[in-house]
Amino acid sequence: MINLKFHTDIDASILTVQASAAQNLLKEIHDDAMAGWLKLPETYNKDEVECIKKAADKIRSDSKYLVCIGIGGSYLGHKAVIDALESQIKSETKILYAGNSISTISLQKVIDEIGDDDFSINVISKSGTTTEPAIAFRVLKEKLFEKYGENEAYTRIYATTDAESGALHDEALYNHYERFVVPDEVGGRYSVLTAVGLLPLAVAGVDIDELLSGAREEEAAIVTELESDDKNGYEEIAGSITDTIFKYAAARHILRTRNYDVEVLACFEPCMEYFEKWWQQLFGESEGKEDKGIFPATAIYTTDLHSLGQYMQQGRPNIFETIMTFEKVPTPKFVGRINPDMEVPELPENLDGLGYLEGKELGYINNQAKAATIIAHSEHIPVFKIAMPDLSERSLGSLIYFFELACAISAKFQQVNPFDQPGVEAYKKEMFRLLGKPVENN
Amino acid sequence: MINLKFHTDIDASILTVQASAAQNLLKEIHDDAMAGWLKLPETYNKDEVECIKKAADKIRSDSKYLVCIGIGGSYLGHKAVIDALESQIKSETKILYAGNSISTISLQKVIDEIGDDDFSINVISKSGTTTEPAIAFRVLKEKLFEKYGENEAYTRIYATTDAESGALHDEALYNHYERFVVPDEVGGRYSVLTAVGLLPLAVAGVDIDELLSGAREEEAAIVTELESDDKNGYEEIAGSITDTIFKYAAARHILRTRNYDVEVLACFEPCMEYFEKWWQQLFGESEGKEDKGIFPATAIYTTDLHSLGQYMQQGRPNIFETIMTFEKVPTPKFVGRINPDMEVPELPENLDGLGYLEGKELGYINNQAKAATIIAHSEHIPVFKIAMPDLSERSLGSLIYFFELACAISAKFQQVNPFDQPGVEAYKKEMFRLLGKPVENN
Repeated sequence: MINLKFHTDIDASILTVQASAAQNLLKEIHDDAMAGWLKLPETYNKDEVECIKKAADKIRSDSKYLVCIGIGGSYLGHKAVIDALESQIKSETKILYAGNSISTISLQKVIDEIGDDDFSINVISKSGTTTEPAIAFRVLKEKLFEKYGENEAYTRIYATTDAESGALHDEALYNHYERFVVPDEVGGRYSVLTAVGLLPLAVAGVDIDELLSGAREEEAAIVTELESDDKNGYEEIAGSITDTIFKYAAARHILRTRNYDVEVLACFEPCMEYFEKWWQQLFGESEGKEDKGIFPATAIYTTDLHSLGQYMQQGRPNIFETIMTFEKVPTPKFVGRINPDMEVPELPENLDGLGYLEGKELGYINNQAKAATIIAHSEHIPVFKIAMPDLSERSLGSLIYFFELACAISAKFQQVNPFDQPGVEAYKKEMFRLLGKPVENN
Repeated sequence: MINLKFHTDIDASILTVQASAAQNLLKEIHDDAMAGWLKLPETYNKDEVECIKKAADKIRSDSKYLVCIGIGGSYLGHKAVIDALESQIKSETKILYAGNSISTISLQKVIDEIGDDDFSINVISKSGTTTEPAIAFRVLKEKLFEKYGENEAYTRIYATTDAESGALHDEALYNHYERFVVPDEVGGRYSVLTAVGLLPLAVAGVDIDELLSGAREEEAAIVTELESDDKNGYEEIAGSITDTIFKYAAARHILRTRNYDVEVLACFEPCMEYFEKWWQQLFGESEGKEDKGIFPATAIYTTDLHSLGQYMQQGRPNIFETIMTFEKVPTPKFVGRINPDMEVPELPENLDGLGYLEGKELGYINNQAKAATIIAHSEHIPVFKIAMPDLSERSLGSLIYFFELACAISAKFQQVNPFDQPGVEAYKKEMFRLLGKPVENN
């Protein structure tokens, strides 16, 4: 489903060798206890999906807002997909986000937006003790109590947390919140296709079956790959879906060994901003350890061609660029009809010199800008183009799986653990000390 | 006004030598034809400011929306300040942005938001022929004609453009749009304190006099510095405002020569996101040329401590971090009263282990997170802390001037021109070719 094109000077034979190495790393990843996400699209609990849909229906029927409380992997994945599809989906219930900072301004904005309307809470935390979401949960729970009284309030809280233990698990059990599971074998940044992402996505009107289908398509190829005993090595998979993933990871590895240390993920649709942020966490936390890593940066074009563009074109060339494209131009879908793409209007005078574009569709012009950017930038730095057929649930599911696996393989190439994030504890430890947190709770 | 703290191993004597070099580079910048922004806060045309305020009053009285059409430096500066102050300002007129991409979805969202309400347009372009804003201007002008008829429509268009020539200048003259000037001696990314930024800012309810005052405070120190004939070199200015700017530029230069090639600008208030984007263009376009530069990246904490934080703490250590802080905690200001900071609510049980924070203000906790982050990150990478007294017009004006001058000096250290952006033309050239633009118009 995903088509990958290289605009680099990487030699084809070197790429083949490293793609074959990537193929071998897949087995290592498959055997890792934290690689649950690898088998998730196919094996994900069907009953859980049904419960998610039922809960989503209830929320959509009784809440104008669903406040998702979570930080990092507990909010970036679903926000990424909801924002990406915002012009194609419709729901009576709007998703708001809280607990991803300690800013009074941000939390107050959420409270202001809710106003006197009906709302529910989806609190998403493996442990329940992460400071940012725990604070927001206390504040918003209080609002819920004030509005509905304790008993009804409890029916409006949905906890996505550990299946067996932890502070949030215990609280949910005690107060009878409806519970959903963050699986043990799936880390936060790989969790968007579990209840962590699926409940908010379903509420927002995203077709979660289609999303899972897209991922399943990639997974099927991986399973075939893993189960194939009698294959003759790398040649056999050339041109397949898995090949695309292996080649991207291999090319990143080759560039890293050549001292390229910044990757910019770019897209020509502003609605992909949070998808890029999701990607930034995925790669930043998976690779950025033991003094290693490729710094993950993001850009939205053509917007940022007028800010970062100069640097990409002529700056220090230790940088490479990965551009996501949609072959079919995304256009807003409105109630009851598909809106055609917008065109450049005709004007009697041609004062702005834009006459040559009259009647042309914006999507067409944007696509030419995309092609032009790849030509221009690849004269200075390596550029990868990741092309998807369209901006749909299925494409995004596929893309999520693509990046998750490519990321895990990339980390393995660097010989770091793709699934831990020990460095995140450092600021917390200092913060707890400064805040005087009782030692037994640390 | 701005307080700068270093958490690096840069030797004090080396810093003094380079800060003194920075002082000398100031004279070079002062003599550059494109350094109009250096003298802007003091010399800016008072009549223009009055016209801006008058136009802003009119817009606020007859428009629910002002659509600002511009890309790069023509929108980032004012969006930066408006977003930063969003919880402190109030206006009947909401600012929308268009023409900063070629996305149908983005433009359709603006049109949907306007709906049937009254609106005006501020089109901001030195030339008037930049593709993105020119397209959006055609589309929105058509909407304006449909709603108001040609004659009234013209009274709702405000053109910020070249004083003497160019496509937009000519069109504005021909159709009698109210005009504001993009000065010749101020490039786009340095233009926020001209009409480019000031008109939208005034409409949004920002106190533009205070903003200019903040910048003027910095400028006054620079003027004293430039006019002082009998000074005894660098020692004399130690501890002054100019010293702060020189030291930041000098430290960046020192780190660059040590192969640090990524700078992350971070802040603990999400409302500063676009201020960081403004900074990203400023430094990216000024420094990123001739294969040189420090890649400008951005982060919002504590949010991104759960995405980029791992990389900052343990990743490839060729990165340094500049953290902007506000000593006085920003709290939302509402009509007629100052809202106190939010507190962590008390709960009878302590299931989330947050009991030790009960009654504590979020701003206090956020400040401890900030202090903790600086301690934690500076064990791995160099960290600068840029401390402002508060999040106000005055502080932001000061900070804008601080970064503009530090950026120009930084580019001079690298011996590149801080005021051009030749690389931005490359994608345009390819795009015009692909779109079949008539050659005489290129």
